[in-house]
Parts: sequence; C-alpha cells; structure tokens
Amino acid sequence: MTDTAANNLQAEVNRLRHELQSLKVDKQSDDGEQVTIAEYLLARLEQLGVTSIFGVPGDFNMPFLDYIEDHPKIDWIGNCNELNAAYAADGYARVKENSIGVVTTTFGVGELSAMNGVAGAFSEMVPVLHIVGAPSTAQQKKKPMLHHTLGDGRFGAYIKASEQITIAQAVLMSKTNATSEIDRILTECITRARPVYLMLPTDLVSQKVPAGRLEVPLSRTPPPNNPDVEKFVLDEIVKLVDSADQDIIILVDACAIRHNVRQEVDDLLTRTQFPVYAAPMGKTAVSENHNRYGGIYIGSISDPSIKEKVENAKLILSIGALKSDFNTGMFTYSIPTSSTIELHSDHTQVQHAQFPGIGMKQLLPKLTARLKQFESSASQLAVPHYKAVIPNEQHDDISHAWFWPRMGAFFKEGDVIVAETGTSSFGILDIPLPERSVFVSQILYGSIGWSVGSTLGAALAARDKKMGRTILFVGDGSLQLTVQELSTMMHYGLKPIIFVLNNKGYNIERHLHGMHRKYNDIADWQWTSLLTTLSNPNPQEKPKSKSYTLTALLEDKIFSNTGEMQLVEVVMDMYDTPRALQAAADLSAS
Amino acid sequence: MTDTAANNLQAEVNRLRHELQSLKVDKQSDDGEQVTIAEYLLARLEQLGVTSIFGVPGDFNMPFLDYIEDHPKIDWIGNCNELNAAYAADGYARVKENSIGVVTTTFGVGELSAMNGVAGAFSEMVPVLHIVGAPSTAQQKKKPMLHHTLGDGRFGAYIKASEQITIAQAVLMSKTNATSEIDRILTECITRARPVYLMLPTDLVSQKVPAGRLEVPLSRTPPPNNPDVEKFVLDEIVKLVDSADQDIIILVDACAIRHNVRQEVDDLLTRTQFPVYAAPMGKTAVSENHNRYGGIYIGSISDPSIKEKVENAKLILSIGALKSDFNTGMFTYSIPTSSTIELHSDHTQVQHAQFPGIGMKQLLPKLTARLKQFESSASQLAVPHYKAVIPNEQHDDISHAWFWPRMGAFFKEGDVIVAETGTSSFGILDIPLPERSVFVSQILYGSIGWSVGSTLGAALAARDKKMGRTILFVGDGSLQLTVQELSTMMHYGLKPIIFVLNNKGYNIERHLHGMHRKYNDIADWQWTSLLTTLSNPNPQEKPKSKSYTLTALLEDKIFSNTGEMQLVEVVMDMYDTPRALQAAADLSAS
Repeated sequence: MTDTAANNLQAEVNRLRHELQSLKVDKQSDDGEQVTIAEYLLARLEQLGVTSIFGVPGDFNMPFLDYIEDHPKIDWIGNCNELNAAYAADGYARVKENSIGVVTTTFGVGELSAMNGVAGAFSEMVPVLHIVGAPSTAQQKKKPMLHHTLGDGRFGAYIKASEQITIAQAVLMSKTNATSEIDRILTECITRARPVYLMLPTDLVSQKVPAGRLEVPLSRTPPPNNPDVEKFVLDEIVKLVDSADQDIIILVDACAIRHNVRQEVDDLLTRTQFPVYAAPMGKTAVSENHNRYGGIYIGSISDPSIKEKVENAKLILSIGALKSDFNTGMFTYSIPTSSTIELHSDHTQVQHAQFPGIGMKQLLPKLTARLKQFESSASQLAVPHYKAVIPNEQHDDISHAWFWPRMGAFFKEGDVIVAETGTSSFGILDIPLPERSVFVSQILYGSIGWSVGSTLGAALAARDKKMGRTILFVGDGSLQLTVQELSTMMHYGLKPIIFVLNNKGYNIERHLHGMHRKYNDIADWQWTSLLTTLSNPNPQEKPKSKSYTLTALLEDKIFSNTGEMQLVEVVMDMYDTPRALQAAADLSAS
Repeated sequence: MTDTAANNLQAEVNRLRHELQSLKVDKQSDDGEQVTIAEYLLARLEQLGVTSIFGVPGDFNMPFLDYIEDHPKIDWIGNCNELNAAYAADGYARVKENSIGVVTTTFGVGELSAMNGVAGAFSEMVPVLHIVGAPSTAQQKKKPMLHHTLGDGRFGAYIKASEQITIAQAVLMSKTNATSEIDRILTECITRARPVYLMLPTDLVSQKVPAGRLEVPLSRTPPPNNPDVEKFVLDEIVKLVDSADQDIIILVDACAIRHNVRQEVDDLLTRTQFPVYAAPMGKTAVSENHNRYGGIYIGSISDPSIKEKVENAKLILSIGALKSDFNTGMFTYSIPTSSTIELHSDHTQVQHAQFPGIGMKQLLPKLTARLKQFESSASQLAVPHYKAVIPNEQHDDISHAWFWPRMGAFFKEGDVIVAETGTSSFGILDIPLPERSVFVSQILYGSIGWSVGSTLGAALAARDKKMGRTILFVGDGSLQLTVQELSTMMHYGLKPIIFVLNNKGYNIERHLHGMHRKYNDIADWQWTSLLTTLSNPNPQEKPKSKSYTLTALLEDKIFSNTGEMQLVEVVMDMYDTPRALQAAADLSAS
C-alpha cells in the first residue's frame, strides 16, 4: 500500500470515528444551541489552545475578522503581508507545541502570497491552518469577473495550487456539512502535523449551525498499534540491543518534537541512561544539559569526537529522523542500515524490516519498560562533553569563530532562540543551549526571510507559555526579505532581541556558488535606525526600542533583560562563515 | 470549440510554423556555432528588448545568474524578495511594451514566493517569463531529500501549482529540445500577453546547443483573420454605424494596450473623429489631451456628463474590453449588447454575434479605412471637456477632493504614473494625465503592495524609453507589504517620487467593510526617515534621497526635477476617500 493510500485510509478512519461520536450529540442538539460557522471554527481553535491568529485583512475575509476581533480569548495579529503572516503561524506552532498556527488571508492575492510560508510548514511538519476568505457561494457558482480573480472564471485555480502544499482541504459551500468539514481538516492537521486549507465564503461566516458537536473534542490520539506486531517489534529491538552488547546510542531528530514525544524520549533516557545525540533539526528536543547528551551529529560535518562515538556504536536507535541534505551533513551519515532502528510517527524500521502502522507515541513507553534492564551497563558508556569555548582572538573583527560561543554564554534558561536558515542555523549548531530553551530553525525547507515572521509567532507563543526571551539571529540579506514584520512585533508590545549579522550579502550563497559575484551583494542599510523608522512617531504610542552595534554590550544587564525591543547590528567580514557551513559548502560542491 | 482548445490549437500552429522555419537553419548549423543554453535564452530575451532581469539568488539559479551578470546588454536587478521581483517584472513589461518582463527565482522557496506576482500578470495580461533555477536533472530523477523540497520526493509539486497561473510551461530535462521549448513558451508569452514558466536545472545551464535558430526571430504576428469572415464583419459594422446615424462612441480598454494596438486606435480616431472614452484600465491608451477624448467611463460611477454621452450613444465600439467589477463600476454598464461592437485580440462580437478568430490587430486598419467616410458627421458629435478643477478648500487638512486635482497640475509630459490599487487608483481616475504619460495600475487583480515592486520595473523601463519621471501613489498600508523595494530603487540609481498617503490603515478596506474595526488599522511608521534607513550609510556610496511632508512643495523646482529619490508623506484623515471609491464601495455593499 502506498503512503498516500495509507494516509487516506487513516484520515477516513479518524473522520468516521469522530462522526460516530458526534452523531449522538448532533441528534440531541438539533433543537439545541446554535452558533455561527465563524464561532464554531473559533471555538474549535480555542479548544486547540490557539490564542493568536495571523493575517492581513481583505474584503473577502473581513466578515470573519469581525468574529476574531470580538472573540474574548483569541487575538487578531495583523501582519504587514501574508508571507510574513504564514511564517508567524509556523513559528507560533513550533514554540507553542500541542496547538496549531493559524493564518487568515483573502482569496487569490492573499492566499498565493502566503503559499511559500505554508509550503515550509508542510515540508517541516508544522501544523498550520490556512483560512482563506472567499467570494460568496453564489458568486463562486456564477463566476463574475471579480477583483482578485484570474479574469477567466477559474475560481478553483487557487485551491488547486494549495492542494500541492497542504494535506487536506475543505471548501465550505453550504452550512450542512460545514462543522464536519472543519472537524475533518483540523483532525488531519493535529494528527499528522502538517498544514490544511479552509475556504470560507463570505455568506457562510454568519450562518447558524448546531453547537452540540463542540462537546466532542477533536482527538489527537494516533491510531493504536497492532498489539501482535508491536510485541514482535519490541522483541526484535531487545534482541538487537542485547546482541550489540548494549553498545547503543540514541539519535533524536525533528519528528520527536513535531509528533509530541519529548516526554516519552526523556523517560527513555532517564530510565535507560543510553547516550543521546541530536540531529540539527532535533536540537533542544532533548535538554542540551542532560548528563547523557553528547551534542549534534551531522554526518561528516560533526565534531570528530561526536562522529566517532555515533558511527562506532553497534546500534543506533533513531527517533523521528528527517534525513534531509543539510540535516545529515549532505547525506554523509556513515551508519549502515543493519545497525539502525528507526522510530517514526506512523511506522517503525528495524534494520531492513519495515513495520507500517507501528507508531512511536505508543511504542516508546513500552520500549522504555523493556530497555531499562540495560541501565547499569548503558550508564557506563562514555559521552563526549558538549561545550563551546570562546576563543581569545587578537583582532577587533567579530569572527564567526568568536561570535557563536560568546552568544552561548549570553543565553539563559527558557530562551527561545530563532536562527535564520543558512549562516545562523549553521553557526549555532556547535553551541549548547541552556535548560528549557527552544531552538527554532527551518533547516529542511530553508526559505530565507522565514525567521523574521517566525520570530513574531514564536515570541507570542513564548509569552503564552511564560518562557524567557525570544532571540533572533538573522543575516542582513535574509532580514531584507521580511523586514517589515519587526514593526508588527513592536506594535503588539513584543520585545525580542534581534541580532543582525551584517556581512553585506548572502553569506551562505557566497559559500555555495559565486563567492565574488555581485548578485550575492545586497544594498547596505542603516540598520541601527531601523526600529525607530518602523515604530510609531507619536510619543504617547511610541514603543520602546533600542539598537546597538555589538561591543561590550553582552555584559549589559539592561540589554540582557529585554525591557524593550532591541536590535544589534553585528558587522562581520563578508567572506567569514561558520565552521559547519564551510564544511557543508565543501561537501555540496563535491 | 472551447477557449482552451482554441488556444491549444493556436499554440500548436505557432510552434509548427516556427519549427518549420527553424528546421532549415538547424540543418545548416549542426556543424555551426554552439552556445550554452543560458546564452541561447539570454540571446532570445535580448531580441525581445529585455534589458533588466529581476530576481533573488539561490543555489539552484546561481549558475544561470553568472551568465546574466556577464551579459553585456542585460542587467541583473537583485530584489529584496521574490514577490517584489515578480511585481517589478510586471511593471517593467507594462511600461516597456513590445517586450516582456523576466523574473528569476530558485526552486520552491523562491518560485512560490513569486506566485502572487505572476498570477497578477496572468489576470491583467502582462507578458512575464518566470525562470526557475531547479535541481539538476539527475537529482530530479533520483529525488533525494534536498533543501527547498517538500521532503516527500514530489519534485513536480511546484510546477503543478504554477500551471494554474501561467499559460505555458517548459521543464527542460535535456539539451535536445531545450531551444525549441524556450522558443515555444516565449512565443506564447508574446502573442498571448500572459506569463509563462521555464524550469532550468543547474546542469543544463552550460550545456551547448546549436545557435542557428537564433537567426529566425520569434514572431509576434497574430494568426491571419479569415478574409471572408473579416469582410463580413466589416460590412456588418459599417451597416450598423450607418443605421445609428453615425451616433457612435469608441470605448478603449486594457487590451488595447496589452495587445499592442495603440497606433491602430490612434489612426482610427484621427481619421474618423469619433468621440472616444476610456475604461479605468484603458487610461492613457489614448492621449488624454486628444481633442475627441471625453474622459473615463466607469458605469454608474462615471462623471454624469460622461455617463450620459456614453450610454445615450446609439452604438458603442469597444476596443479591448476587460469587464471586471472595479473596471466597470461594479458591473453597472448601462449599455445593451444590441448597441455594442466588441473588438478583442482573438475574436470580434457584433451585437449578439460572435466571430472567433477575427482579431483586432488586423481588423482595425481595415475598419479605419471603411469608417473614415463618416468623418465629417462624426466630428460634429459633442465631447465633454475632461478636466479637473482644484477646489479652494478652507481648511489645512489634505483632502482627497483637493489632493488629486492638485496632483494633476503637478504632472508633466511623459511621466510614468503608478497608482496602487484601491484609494490611489480610484483617486486618479477623475484627473486627466498629460501627453505621452503612462498610467499603470492593477485594477482587476488588485493585490495591495504590487505598486511598489512595479514602480521599480516601471522606472527601469522608463529610463530605457527615455520617458519622464516615475511617480508612485501608495497608501501606508500597501507600502508596508513591499516597502523594502524602495532600497532596490536607490541601490540601482533610480529616482522615482513616492507619495505615501498616510491615513493610518487600509482606506479601501474601511470603505468596503469594518470602517471602525481595529483590523483595518496598521502600525504607524516614521515615514520621512524611511529612505535614509533603507539607504547605504557609507558616504561614498550613499544614494541621494529626500523625504518631505506635503506643503507648498509641489511648486518647488528642485523637488519637481527629481535629482534624487524622493518620498513625500501625505497625512490624510483616516476616513476620507476619493469620490469614485466611495461610489464603488456603496455599490459593492448593495
């Protein structure tokens, strides 16, 4: 059975289960409470923990925005543009966890602008709901030459484009199935951790539907593993661990975060004491201060001591792997399949044998119970000490070699650290992050400019979760793509720290191709006046903000405590680059 | 036959004709000169008059960018982001005319970001080529989990999305058909005036192909009209004109510009002296100083004297109509089909009778020859005098009622005037523009923020064509979507004048829905420090720029002569709006 067929079947099973449960309630509530479709949708989002909805107004979505603005527990966050709004929804979902990000756009002009942001969420498995305000159902049937259309009557063209980058779509065309359609795509979104699309025509927003179904919460429980197959898999794993003389390491990756098994992984580590490493996209899935944590494994780009420990282990237990080029050191894992056990959200692979339908959420606790017998020998396995030393450099230039370890010393517990794809995400790999901190980066999809919108969403989620500071590292070239969203952060009272790495162009591109080409240069800006320009000139409404150029600033208590939004311009040599990026670029060229 | 089937057949006819011509050359040149595929493509673009290519570098397009940077006659214009680049290509094509706009992006992250800009070009019939740098042909076959992919091996997903918003696509997968594929989509682009998509894998860029085909230029000649049908149509039209007692007006619209019949229309007017009016999207297709020009017709939103003249004429000769909601005063044309003759690029409609395949490019000169007999009576028909009077207002606020007529007095011959969709495009409708000026707006697709990227392209095309100043009118809300592109204009030495209408939010949206809603407010910025912030701080490289708040400035010679890039913040009441927009909003609500 193909993946698509299996996914479709599973979606249908989820839908039928939920419909059965809802049926009883529906029957009772035919004469019961009624709510508008907008209220129903917002009630579902509130149940899922959504507190902010991102987007840009347009005449086809404004009737729905009225309901958001009036909602007591959900805030409308108006973005400068739709791409940034989609990035913000993505960043919100990554930090909030167990919730989803929501972006609302208008038909055509808005939704197409958001596409790249939604595609990034698809690629990196981030649960995002894209709500598109659309012409009325009557207009969609009659197809007049409305503004925002392609002028040729193809009202269905935009959703066809979005079908490529979302796992489920619902086009509401009548109130009769509106609530079941909303429930269906939201269930897909939360169980498969990928974006879904909802088209909401203007005339349906205020139509009344029974509220009864809201009593049946949406289920995020994955389907149960087949007990016989699961037992077989557990037996196989235990046999392999035993025959490997317990010389085993655990490698944690992105899907451990996305599919919500952080706690299960932590239990596994605590009870078994096996050494653990993370792939770049799994950074901070496990505490980087954990006594059994050895650092980041990224194939041949890894620190040599880490590479040796991982690749010489007799058995690798991989949890939630996402083996993309940049996440694997350009596909340089030197680990044979015969030494690997892979746990995924919807299947398990033991050496060469695949077990579809055996998911890690239910498997992990049972695996922990079976493997804790090995604790005493596992705890003897040596783990390299993952640390970053600040070099004592004899020049005034700020080098990557100095900058990233120095940043490591600046971070605090609970910080949310967003690194733009490229130079920043590579730079930070060698730096251990503090307890309860969260690392956010887009390493697989790698859309430059993503980190700025994402920081807005991450900072709102961090505020909800009462986490620490939100800190963004972004290059000058990347910041230019999405710069206006700094204004939105100030407008809504957020106080992130923005480190702008000013190296006069696209550093990662230079190292991949065209080192001295003009197309990798960018227009230089007066970075330290940016926050002032993008803020309200009215003294009563002026958000506090401050900009710096990096010197002894990192010791400054006032700076460090983020009483206002702060931007630091870090001027660097245009050809300097982090160690890991240099290594990746060399591999890419070869 | 459906439109699609007819278009497909026509495309095949064009291709076969071109292939036949090329065959002879190909045969001769098998041993002849060879060029790389990149050089071939750029040679074709040079032949089409392209002097600037817009885009953002990425590792999958950089091998091609090398060739652009090295090309002696085509400049690489590096944009801040891809959406802005697509908008710039659109604006370039609109002003350059008889050429095309070109935007180059990278696989996935880049191309999806550009989609909304390309879709706007589709909707408004602007010829744009979207070149996407893609993974190598080997990678596209093997499908590894590369960065910028969706992570699931669907390398074809992005082009499927783009199929919805382009009329032709070519995925180059081998050098054998590369040149014929390039020729095929470029021919489609120039003959149908709509966007096309070219995927260029990294490994094909430098592969050698015969150069011989370049000797056969791409043809933009539309297919010939069937002579019998054409004669029948001409007879029918002359009969109708005669039986209407020569009481006829001409109505010019967007497609007269897009399908390149400005000269033919001018001849028709000069030889027949029939009164002429323009739809909003046809503004400046005919000189607004022409002695037979009566102004803008926009259904029931029209100035009453214009409405009366147009709707009371016994016969309307409509040239290149595009009857979208905003272009027709919300579908309020009060003109019966029985009084209408419609000329289009690929068909003609006389009253209720349709004549597919009878295109206006060839029909118009013949029609002029037949209709010039009516000149003496036609020249007697009264035409309202189209002018704008500056009201003498007794308050200090800058009102829309004062602002637009005052701007009318500021314009000079040959100015390129870009108006953002919404408040600005409505505001300028009532203002006649000077001789040889060009009006640029996106009235059908209506994507806010479009005008800023478009101004970059328009200003480059205006420089090529030695036209006058480029002047942009944009609201604060719209400017925030795409603001970074002001930096690109300064970086490349362009000196447009930017009027920022600061009314603290989305004015057009307020007038359509949610007048006092917070979601229509935006973060206020320090607009007059924007150009300084977005410019190079290095005194040697600092572009000259200046920002103002509107006062007696419009009389200032230095300001008016644009020696540097200039931005004017125009502070307006947040609820004030142009007359035509108020009328459109009222119609939209009813």
